[in-house]
Amino acid sequence: MRIDDQFIQSHNDKTLPAHRESFAHLKQRLESKNVEVATLIEKIKKFQIAIPSWALGTGGTRFGRFPGGGEPRSLEEKIEDVGLLHALNKASGAISLHIPWDIPADADAIKAHAASHGLLFDAMNSNTFQNQPGQSHSYKFGSLCHTDKAVRDQAIAHNKEVIHYGKQLGSNSLTVWLADGSSFPGQMNFRKALQRTLMSLQEIYADLPDDWKMFVEYKPYEPYFYHTVIQDWGTSHLLARELGDKAFTLVDLGHHLPNTNIEQIVSTLMWQGKLGGFHFNDSKFGDDDLTVGALKPYQLFLIFNELVEGMENEEGNNPAPAWMIDASHNLKDPLEDLLQSVEAIQLAYAQALLIDRDALEQAREKNDAGLAQEIMQDAYRTDVRPMVAEARRQAGASLLPVQAYRDAQVRKNLIKERGSKTLSTGL
Amino acid sequence: MRIDDQFIQSHNDKTLPAHRESFAHLKQRLESKNVEVATLIEKIKKFQIAIPSWALGTGGTRFGRFPGGGEPRSLEEKIEDVGLLHALNKASGAISLHIPWDIPADADAIKAHAASHGLLFDAMNSNTFQNQPGQSHSYKFGSLCHTDKAVRDQAIAHNKEVIHYGKQLGSNSLTVWLADGSSFPGQMNFRKALQRTLMSLQEIYADLPDDWKMFVEYKPYEPYFYHTVIQDWGTSHLLARELGDKAFTLVDLGHHLPNTNIEQIVSTLMWQGKLGGFHFNDSKFGDDDLTVGALKPYQLFLIFNELVEGMENEEGNNPAPAWMIDASHNLKDPLEDLLQSVEAIQLAYAQALLIDRDALEQAREKNDAGLAQEIMQDAYRTDVRPMVAEARRQAGASLLPVQAYRDAQVRKNLIKERGSKTLSTGL
Amino acid sequence: MRIDDQFIQSHNDKTLPAHRESFAHLKQRLESKNVEVATLIEKIKKFQIAIPSWALGTGGTRFGRFPGGGEPRSLEEKIEDVGLLHALNKASGAISLHIPWDIPADADAIKAHAASHGLLFDAMNSNTFQNQPGQSHSYKFGSLCHTDKAVRDQAIAHNKEVIHYGKQLGSNSLTVWLADGSSFPGQMNFRKALQRTLMSLQEIYADLPDDWKMFVEYKPYEPYFYHTVIQDWGTSHLLARELGDKAFTLVDLGHHLPNTNIEQIVSTLMWQGKLGGFHFNDSKFGDDDLTVGALKPYQLFLIFNELVEGMENEEGNNPAPAWMIDASHNLKDPLEDLLQSVEAIQLAYAQALLIDRDALEQAREKNDAGLAQEIMQDAYRTDVRPMVAEARRQAGASLLPVQAYRDAQVRKNLIKERGSKTLSTGL
Amino acid sequence: MRIDDQFIQSHNDKTLPAHRESFAHLKQRLESKNVEVATLIEKIKKFQIAIPSWALGTGGTRFGRFPGGGEPRSLEEKIEDVGLLHALNKASGAISLHIPWDIPADADAIKAHAASHGLLFDAMNSNTFQNQPGQSHSYKFGSLCHTDKAVRDQAIAHNKEVIHYGKQLGSNSLTVWLADGSSFPGQMNFRKALQRTLMSLQEIYADLPDDWKMFVEYKPYEPYFYHTVIQDWGTSHLLARELGDKAFTLVDLGHHLPNTNIEQIVSTLMWQGKLGGFHFNDSKFGDDDLTVGALKPYQLFLIFNELVEGMENEEGNNPAPAWMIDASHNLKDPLEDLLQSVEAIQLAYAQALLIDRDALEQAREKNDAGLAQEIMQDAYRTDVRPMVAEARRQAGASLLPVQAYRDAQVRKNLIKERGSKTLSTGL
Repeated sequence: MRIDDQFIQSHNDKTLPAHRESFAHLKQRLESKNVEVATLIEKIKKFQIAIPSWALGTGGTRFGRFPGGGEPRSLEEKIEDVGLLHALNKASGAISLHIPWDIPADADAIKAHAASHGLLFDAMNSNTFQNQPGQSHSYKFGSLCHTDKAVRDQAIAHNKEVIHYGKQLGSNSLTVWLADGSSFPGQMNFRKALQRTLMSLQEIYADLPDDWKMFVEYKPYEPYFYHTVIQDWGTSHLLARELGDKAFTLVDLGHHLPNTNIEQIVSTLMWQGKLGGFHFNDSKFGDDDLTVGALKPYQLFLIFNELVEGMENEEGNNPAPAWMIDASHNLKDPLEDLLQSVEAIQLAYAQALLIDRDALEQAREKNDAGLAQEIMQDAYRTDVRPMVAEARRQAGASLLPVQAYRDAQVRKNLIKERGSKTLSTGL
Repeated sequence: MRIDDQFIQSHNDKTLPAHRESFAHLKQRLESKNVEVATLIEKIKKFQIAIPSWALGTGGTRFGRFPGGGEPRSLEEKIEDVGLLHALNKASGAISLHIPWDIPADADAIKAHAASHGLLFDAMNSNTFQNQPGQSHSYKFGSLCHTDKAVRDQAIAHNKEVIHYGKQLGSNSLTVWLADGSSFPGQMNFRKALQRTLMSLQEIYADLPDDWKMFVEYKPYEPYFYHTVIQDWGTSHLLARELGDKAFTLVDLGHHLPNTNIEQIVSTLMWQGKLGGFHFNDSKFGDDDLTVGALKPYQLFLIFNELVEGMENEEGNNPAPAWMIDASHNLKDPLEDLLQSVEAIQLAYAQALLIDRDALEQAREKNDAGLAQEIMQDAYRTDVRPMVAEARRQAGASLLPVQAYRDAQVRKNLIKERGSKTLSTGL
Repeated sequence: MRIDDQFIQSHNDKTLPAHRESFAHLKQRLESKNVEVATLIEKIKKFQIAIPSWALGTGGTRFGRFPGGGEPRSLEEKIEDVGLLHALNKASGAISLHIPWDIPADADAIKAHAASHGLLFDAMNSNTFQNQPGQSHSYKFGSLCHTDKAVRDQAIAHNKEVIHYGKQLGSNSLTVWLADGSSFPGQMNFRKALQRTLMSLQEIYADLPDDWKMFVEYKPYEPYFYHTVIQDWGTSHLLARELGDKAFTLVDLGHHLPNTNIEQIVSTLMWQGKLGGFHFNDSKFGDDDLTVGALKPYQLFLIFNELVEGMENEEGNNPAPAWMIDASHNLKDPLEDLLQSVEAIQLAYAQALLIDRDALEQAREKNDAGLAQEIMQDAYRTDVRPMVAEARRQAGASLLPVQAYRDAQVRKNLIKERGSKTLSTGL
Repeated sequence: MRIDDQFIQSHNDKTLPAHRESFAHLKQRLESKNVEVATLIEKIKKFQIAIPSWALGTGGTRFGRFPGGGEPRSLEEKIEDVGLLHALNKASGAISLHIPWDIPADADAIKAHAASHGLLFDAMNSNTFQNQPGQSHSYKFGSLCHTDKAVRDQAIAHNKEVIHYGKQLGSNSLTVWLADGSSFPGQMNFRKALQRTLMSLQEIYADLPDDWKMFVEYKPYEPYFYHTVIQDWGTSHLLARELGDKAFTLVDLGHHLPNTNIEQIVSTLMWQGKLGGFHFNDSKFGDDDLTVGALKPYQLFLIFNELVEGMENEEGNNPAPAWMIDASHNLKDPLEDLLQSVEAIQLAYAQALLIDRDALEQAREKNDAGLAQEIMQDAYRTDVRPMVAEARRQAGASLLPVQAYRDAQVRKNLIKERGSKTLSTGL
């Protein structure tokens, strides 16, 4: 199924008058405060968030999985699903693949297929946290950190293979999420496991093309429950520094201990020029992998405040980070959830762009905490939906992507096409 | 210092045209969705949040305290401070006193003084977590739970004295926050401590006038660091049920373990008709006592969603809860912080009133989690500031209380009146 | 495979001299402090911990599962596995079944099979958190709380069926762990969901034989990630009280928010006569389901301190709780893990029995926190392994169950019998 | 008051026969497993833990403080108190001073006084989290990170002054605990605050004598409640690396988010040769500052496992860390609490020394998680009290320090000497 411009156009037409009025009101209000609305809209239009191939099907927990229907059965169908999203929001112009689930049989054909949907290939993801059929060595007790060199070599080779496929598709980065860790005190020698991990990463790094980046993800727990080899940003940063200029830390919002000040981590990494990528999701308890902005929208805004600050800081030398959603959709229609997530990110970005940075820096210099809060919350409380909708409209996307998705009866059509019992690969 | 209507009026005049325009836009947009804006504004106008007498001065931590200046030196001056807030926002029409800090020498005079500021006396608060000069027995190891009957009797008598003062002032409720607990495993017999607490509360309850309520607060830790006698809502509820129909649980937002779903606790208590009062504040780590809405505005909205649901549920028999701010102002001007807190509460309340409850219940019946989120976030993302400002304007308050407070140079005047070295009693 | 007395005896013989010496030393040291060692040993011998049928195979996470081999393929083989444990420790004399995984085709034969291993049937467990093949209605959005009466009725009928099987096998209790909840703010009406759950439980309760108990479990999150209908002990207790005298709260160690004082919950529930059962496991981050005592052995001791206090409190009217392990074995051999868990429980129980309660109560009366800690830690620091080993020896079990398990090459034998690719039902 | 050898000797005599018997039993049991008991005892004897001068008086919370009596009124009396501890346990042979509370009027006399008690001067501590009388600039909004250069310069000068006093007393390290942070989103520019902090530290570092070390402490929150400039080990490590070879990270057990794997942080820092010092305490909820080992003795053991591993790792180049207790004594007699803390540290160290490292490494190589746990817990469950007592006895200390402290009626004597209303400086 494809959604064409015609549908978008006619769907937009229904709410266009109301949209114009709301946008005009917002524009006038913002311009009276010297906000350059057109400039902001251009920034929003340029902001693209990659969709991971494993988020297109129904996810589950260890207690079970309740599949919906119409899930993509192949890499081609995954690309089509992201194409649907991108048609609706013109903000999901890239797909992030997971090997071995998404090995392209014919890379050129896959590239052409993606291009026909306006999609690029974002970071490639390796998988050394599960055993694949026919695999020689088990990852039960780790991969790049494993005590057995044969297991490490297998995991290193897999990562090199992922780079290989990525090169074919035009990707230019590799994300290493390493589940490796242990569940019992004493089980693993922390230091040796970290040393072995560094050595394994160095071997993979040596294989990285010059124009590629490597993103080293961190996570405090799960699937292991006592220790994770790369438990926090400090450990990831230590590894990235040892590895070299092409290695960066990747921040996943769900991979933190309770109450962590994530926005500060973002700030520190960008100061160091070492923030490579970002995985968006939301959570209340652990790595819950819920819709972005569903639980803590103000935290998301504060993180975007730092991202904007870091991206616009002239001294800063942090390269543009790779943006991706990383969520698991257990209850909602995955595509609808992704539309909500992208919109939540756009709104947070737009709010962060609205912050009056000169006034904020002045308040900070005077330690006027009350005024600083007023400035932050003035931006946050502004209803920026008309501005984000306008950005979408100008880009040829839908004013109301979720509504358009429902009105186009996408899921019903996908079930008709693909059946109701399909099971997408992924978590 | 008093702020008169004249000042408010002329301050409002400056921004009235812009306000009228924003409000008109919002009103029209909401009415197009069948929201009865005038009805909501009446609800907002009626919503009054009590100010605790101990929040008017600079608070501190165990590491130190950095006083500002112009802090109230007497009960009269505390009333004047709340009067200033109420003049600015017409939403802080009550003061909540803490005995022994606020013993009225002449209750009638104090009542008249409060009345001249349009203020009532909200819940009375007892203090058995500190020793007062000349006190016979120490609360070092607890008060109502103490192993020594003499200590318990002293604490019971103190609570009765608090009721006595409250009766004189026209209050009709007693809040018991019990710091009692222990810091080391083994130190206290949990069961006996809880039994003794119940017996002590029963003695106080027996002294409660017929038209009074008793609010039993809970808190998981601090100032004791291993166990708190009333550690959670379940324990408070158990006590309130044993005590009788006049006893209720009081929820303080800061008194929960990490990640607690507080809004669900609110729902359960209101279902049981046992939610008595609410202490507003915000926090990231523990009982941080920060400005309401400063850290987790979406959680505040979700809590108000339950409060509105509970208050408007016809089956429900929960009496109108007592609303109070309970914060400590270490860095900001306390009065400005309180204005920000009241505004954050008003905004969350207004957003919760906007939720399309019929549509929400329909989505819930169908388990349409995506739609339910859309409905919730549509209300939350709406910029309700013009509506809340309009409610204030209609009530004779300021359109922009914080701005008016700054423009009136209140702190400067208070320092001139009271000096820069005053230290208000309180935390 | 069975382990016979002969094997146990000869295995014990090897370490008997060293055991006798260690035990003699401990006995003499304890008796010099007036501890009645023989009495304690009798208590330890009587303490039986049920093994859940789903813990005998390799568990997993949402990220994968790494099976071992030799897992039980049928209810009969599950009973045999528990029989092996009981032969080794004489402390695992009951099995707890999960329906529909463990439906007995011939209840009498199953009872006889269990009896031949010296096993009873502990609490029956229902399962309404997964869909079974051929099921009419989905539990994707809840079971006993569901908005749709047909789903609730299906779940009620399932629970009644579980009672039916339990009666056939001689069980006398039903554990209801209700996964029900929601993952997004707004998705579910908290109050209605709780009301519906109460009504559903009442229907099940009505079917409960007179001599049965119902255990209502609680859990703050997972598999839902925003709200759980029975989120905490307070909610469970509220339900149990409404249900009646046969309903109790069940505490699972892993089902608490960070830093919860679980031992205090135990104390409060036992004071109320409402602690029905206990699920042992250990965890660092969430419901990690790790080996009992693997992470927080001192907390386990403190909990046993309350359990002993509650069981020996003459005023108390709490019935003897049902003890069960509830863990998931992802990395270790499940049987070996269970042996470690039972031993950890026995050790904590023995340490708690050693606490000098008279001295402790005296220290508490005097608020001598330092002395109370000395008394607690004196018991905890005592190496009680010889006493627990002696209790096992007297009961005909192994002095060193884990060592005996390894020396008997149980896993190797089970793999030979059952194959290396078996997959036990369960989590 | 001094405790002389005579008292120790005669107090020991009373329990010597029982001690000899227990020690003989333990020694024989350990030697049968090839443990070199005499070697371990030498290690325990050498392990000295510094006592901070501010831990000798009663601490408090923001809610109040309940002083005991007999608290030290001067630096001389603080030294005497630590002297008492060292006389009892011969393991507290150093005192750690806090400036400005402990400025020595006559450094030589103070050194001689300390020497007469067998005490050295451990790390010096600066204080820029409180305002001192007569101070030019306020630390209300930070010190080394402050927006105002004048405040930073004042704080830098203070740290240099601390080094100056330290040099006079023979100390050779400076601990910088920086409370600096902010309580509200937006209040502070994270990046600039961290940059300013680095520059300030560089100025202090430039003043550090060649044989000194600088310890950079981290803490996630309190006294600020949203952001701390040095929030975690990663930030501290980043600063220490920038500063140079004399700068190290200091780990305080209480300064971590819930569930942090602290032992892994220890391992990583020691691998990097950057673990400078350790502050011992214990806690359940936050920075509770309770008696070491009072809440989580197994975690303490696991940390010592890493410390021993790091200290004995031949590749490692981590210098010997500085050990210190950092606790606040609100309820217990501070001196008794410190004796309990030192003993808990000694026990954890002794248990960690008992771990069979060769067997452990073999189990780890084979990923035998069950066996690794058995090895760890075998060490932990061993009652090492007789061995630690023997180490003390050999060093001329008390077999039972807490008991001896009580029997010597130290507190009673101190109150007689110093009065019951003294208030020691400190937290």
